[in-house]
Amino acid sequence: MSNMAMYLGEFFGTLILILLGSGVCCNVSLKKSKGQNSGWIVIAAGWGFAVAIAAYTTGWVSGAHLNPAVSIAMAILGNLSWKLVPGYIISQILGAIVGAMLAYAAFKDHFAETDDKDAKLGVFCTAPAIRNFGRNFITEVIGTAMLVVGILGTGNANNAIGPLGPMLAGIVVFSIGLSLGGPTGYAINPARDLGPRIAHAILPIPNKRDSDWEYAWVPIFGPVVGGIVGALIYNLIFNIWI
Amino acid sequence: MSNMAMYLGEFFGTLILILLGSGVCCNVSLKKSKGQNSGWIVIAAGWGFAVAIAAYTTGWVSGAHLNPAVSIAMAILGNLSWKLVPGYIISQILGAIVGAMLAYAAFKDHFAETDDKDAKLGVFCTAPAIRNFGRNFITEVIGTAMLVVGILGTGNANNAIGPLGPMLAGIVVFSIGLSLGGPTGYAINPARDLGPRIAHAILPIPNKRDSDWEYAWVPIFGPVVGGIVGALIYNLIFNIWI
Amino acid sequence: MSNMAMYLGEFFGTLILILLGSGVCCNVSLKKSKGQNSGWIVIAAGWGFAVAIAAYTTGWVSGAHLNPAVSIAMAILGNLSWKLVPGYIISQILGAIVGAMLAYAAFKDHFAETDDKDAKLGVFCTAPAIRNFGRNFITEVIGTAMLVVGILGTGNANNAIGPLGPMLAGIVVFSIGLSLGGPTGYAINPARDLGPRIAHAILPIPNKRDSDWEYAWVPIFGPVVGGIVGALIYNLIFNIWI
Amino acid sequence: MSNMAMYLGEFFGTLILILLGSGVCCNVSLKKSKGQNSGWIVIAAGWGFAVAIAAYTTGWVSGAHLNPAVSIAMAILGNLSWKLVPGYIISQILGAIVGAMLAYAAFKDHFAETDDKDAKLGVFCTAPAIRNFGRNFITEVIGTAMLVVGILGTGNANNAIGPLGPMLAGIVVFSIGLSLGGPTGYAINPARDLGPRIAHAILPIPNKRDSDWEYAWVPIFGPVVGGIVGALIYNLIFNIWI
Repeated sequence: MSNMAMYLGEFFGTLILILLGSGVCCNVSLKKSKGQNSGWIVIAAGWGFAVAIAAYTTGWVSGAHLNPAVSIAMAILGNLSWKLVPGYIISQILGAIVGAMLAYAAFKDHFAETDDKDAKLGVFCTAPAIRNFGRNFITEVIGTAMLVVGILGTGNANNAIGPLGPMLAGIVVFSIGLSLGGPTGYAINPARDLGPRIAHAILPIPNKRDSDWEYAWVPIFGPVVGGIVGALIYNLIFNIWI
Repeated sequence: MSNMAMYLGEFFGTLILILLGSGVCCNVSLKKSKGQNSGWIVIAAGWGFAVAIAAYTTGWVSGAHLNPAVSIAMAILGNLSWKLVPGYIISQILGAIVGAMLAYAAFKDHFAETDDKDAKLGVFCTAPAIRNFGRNFITEVIGTAMLVVGILGTGNANNAIGPLGPMLAGIVVFSIGLSLGGPTGYAINPARDLGPRIAHAILPIPNKRDSDWEYAWVPIFGPVVGGIVGALIYNLIFNIWI
Repeated sequence: MSNMAMYLGEFFGTLILILLGSGVCCNVSLKKSKGQNSGWIVIAAGWGFAVAIAAYTTGWVSGAHLNPAVSIAMAILGNLSWKLVPGYIISQILGAIVGAMLAYAAFKDHFAETDDKDAKLGVFCTAPAIRNFGRNFITEVIGTAMLVVGILGTGNANNAIGPLGPMLAGIVVFSIGLSLGGPTGYAINPARDLGPRIAHAILPIPNKRDSDWEYAWVPIFGPVVGGIVGALIYNLIFNIWI
Repeated sequence: MSNMAMYLGEFFGTLILILLGSGVCCNVSLKKSKGQNSGWIVIAAGWGFAVAIAAYTTGWVSGAHLNPAVSIAMAILGNLSWKLVPGYIISQILGAIVGAMLAYAAFKDHFAETDDKDAKLGVFCTAPAIRNFGRNFITEVIGTAMLVVGILGTGNANNAIGPLGPMLAGIVVFSIGLSLGGPTGYAINPARDLGPRIAHAILPIPNKRDSDWEYAWVPIFGPVVGGIVGALIYNLIFNIWI
């Protein structure tokens, strides 16, 4: 597989992830959508299945990290060349921007109907339930460490999960959404947050608020730190101690 | 497998899809049904599992497209002979009509109890949340392109999904329902919309409204265009570029 | 496998099915239960997983029909000796009685708290949303025909589902609950209805109503007819025509 | 695998289980969390997926009992050396304590916002819906017996579930939550209850109540008795009679 093919895999996989992921947020949050107020199970299942479908579609091309925090974790563990990391991250962010724009295209009239400016931002990027950057950072670290441990743990060679792999990655994200998503909306992925935030800034959304750049660093650096922590803990326990 | 066997497979598979799919809409929308107002997760899961069960039942016979947009996409990609396409489409529409009639038979007394004429139409065919034919068309294009990409992506030979295939097709539809179903009710399948619409027109439903033929072209041509777009994008990325 | 072992398999499998199935009805319907009013998705998932777990546990022993309508259907198709059918059915009904009694034991204090006598009956056996024996019968026929087609369709040898089998049987029941369960509460299984109804009649439930024997024939004979119809349709299409 | 590796597996697996399990309780119960009041399906799915992910991650190391009741049941059946049981149990309880502390770290600000002291205790350990120690004990016995039967039943060698194993263990717990979780909150695991209760006692939670030690013996001894009962019933039926 050429580098460019792998970058394309990450671009297209993250596009799918965010089209379906921003899509489910639009469906639940925007006015007059048939799924409005359908609850957290819809949000968590929507993001989980988005991961699974994206991972099946491009996993055989690029590994389907779809997430800079995962790519960095994989590089630390020696599963991805550091030379590829910048290209992976750029591809992921670009895919996320295009995915968010497609979700906007599908729900455009519902943005016009929705008065709540925070809701219109909230279908793109995450915002904390209680604004406290230090605590929000910690929550993102814990969630992303759990993500990386879960991906490495389900995918361990001893489990021989074969074609269940992408579905189990989706279940890990489904689970983290259910369990750890409440305080910050679980970015657990810098591209998932930054890409749609850029899309929100660019798109001509009627009556929109600012893109909350003040908070943007938390869902970038929290997941990166969390991914590193998760990779190191997993490596320590399963590759060194055991 | 003879052509007639394959047509029968599409007929019976689409019958199952619509019996269970119109069924879940009846259960959630019609008055006094035990599942009334049980929410979007029930709708999306109901349609997803309907696809999975129909695909297991007839996939080995005809591929279980169950959807003219999928059949056209498969023909474009060379996976289905163009000579079979008309028979596939006719079989799918006929199966959808019969499936919708069976769902009506199961819920007949609840139609009599339900005053809302739009609800009684809505359990058969789709209607947009915000009526804007151009935008509704675009939403159906995006949803169906995602459907075809998801089916091709999960089913890619590199994934070797084997007996998980029909379940993953169901998960793709489950996911699209959760994420992109809000604006139009996600026809993403001309037979799924047209067949039950014809059933609504034919059946002696008490106190029914017209069958909204004005809108009917959107969930026919939107999905067809979306299926073609999805097939071309998938082919470009995964068969030409990669 | 001896006949007695197979009967024991059906007894214990149906016991598990009804312990978990009556259990989820108790959890959703009885007062002060932590899952009270948690909705149709909980009911349908609860019964679906109950089938899957029971089928994994005893499927290798007896085939885990857990349902007289399925046993009769299997006998018609030549998959079960008619000589075994009476023993299968008796074992299923006995297992259902014991399973319902165990669910009662788990929720006993919640029966005392619940004033609604219909709710207390409803966690044992089914009752129609709209009382119309003819239509209720038809609904049970359609649901059970779909059940038998779904089980035969997913389990078709061409699908080679292997260890996914019991889970897919559970998904079929999950799906039928979501889609066709609204009018009658989907008995689709004479033992699932009759066994717990007998338990309701026997148990010293505080302040209980009669066991609604007037309706009891519908969820017995509707499923039996539906199972036969489903088996014959499946056989006609997939074994004769195709 | 060394004993210490296995203890570490149980420690880390139970940590994951409780981080995700206490997490989902925090998400649903604590004020201002985005998943507040999202219902029983979220609770049951959250715990079920928590089990699955923990079991994939450490199952190949230690079997991933994650539960003293399961370890004792396995020892009774000869699947675990009695010499390892104390180390397994201690590791499980320690993992549960640390997991609960991590969930607290992720949701810290939401504890400060929540006035309800029972809710703040309830995200750590179980409490009965109706306080009646004898009945609560029986409910825990039934739930845990079902857990052990379900794990042994799905994992039976005749089923050859292979890589589906940990997911099916998760589905068993998902199912028990849906069906039998209503009266006591389904500890069905002494470590799952005792570990987080100790964490509640230790942690500097603002404005907390006592840790309800009066009830603590029920979710310890109920599950232990239930695990033994389940193992003996399963062994009697499937290893002796069949």
